[in-house]
Amino acid sequence: MSSFEPDTRLIADSYPVTELPLCQLRMMNDQRYVWLVLIPRYEHIHEVHELSAADQQQLWQEGTRLGQAIQAHFEGDKLNIATLGNVVSQLHLHVVLRNQDDPAWPGPVWGHSQAEPYTSDQQAEVRSRLLALIDTIDWE
Amino acid sequence: MSSFEPDTRLIADSYPVTELPLCQLRMMNDQRYVWLVLIPRYEHIHEVHELSAADQQQLWQEGTRLGQAIQAHFEGDKLNIATLGNVVSQLHLHVVLRNQDDPAWPGPVWGHSQAEPYTSDQQAEVRSRLLALIDTIDWE
Repeated sequence: MSSFEPDTRLIADSYPVTELPLCQLRMMNDQRYVWLVLIPRYEHIHEVHELSAADQQQLWQEGTRLGQAIQAHFEGDKLNIATLGNVVSQLHLHVVLRNQDDPAWPGPVWGHSQAEPYTSDQQAEVRSRLLALIDTIDWE
Repeated sequence: MSSFEPDTRLIADSYPVTELPLCQLRMMNDQRYVWLVLIPRYEHIHEVHELSAADQQQLWQEGTRLGQAIQAHFEGDKLNIATLGNVVSQLHLHVVLRNQDDPAWPGPVWGHSQAEPYTSDQQAEVRSRLLALIDTIDWE
């Protein structure tokens, strides 16, 4: 696991938050959204069905439980949960909390507009709130 | 189940294909994509985490197994699997087979451009191919 490296484009666009049972959890560096990316720690898997049945279920469980937790805590209007991979084919799951007044609403966030990076203080604060939330979730 | 009615906008944009154990399976009426929509037969659920744990897993299983089957049969480059609901909030899962030469590639299909409806012959042919594929899948 220590040898796992996400795709360099995912690393460039996001911050690491923590390691979940299956996935490396990262936060997109865009202060306009609470936008998480879950990356199963396999470097050469592109589609969900390439995972074992157990890992497929674990990926969904990690994404949906995180989604429920951030929607309750950050009070968004709608969750968008998606695996696309048209640009970065390494399997990763987006969990994005949407608000009716966000820049891309009601369209998708992917490719909509340039990210507005967090300041280091903002990033540290959101990350600490996420870590506290994650401590309340049973992942198994 | 017979009383279930999808949101009228989903009905307007898609054709019914069949009923899966959890979801009504529909095909978006856009001949440019193999684009399926799975709608759990509950009219007032908006987020995945509002489903029971068993239904959450069944939704994912139906979407990922269909995705694997259409990618093998229709030979696409990438699967996009997403639940968004920013426009139609009734819970539904998109399973879209993408190709590097499709109109929206590599961007998302949602909101990209006006659909090009199937002719009735095309729609019947794709639907029959989907039904034959679905007969080969174990849903439980």
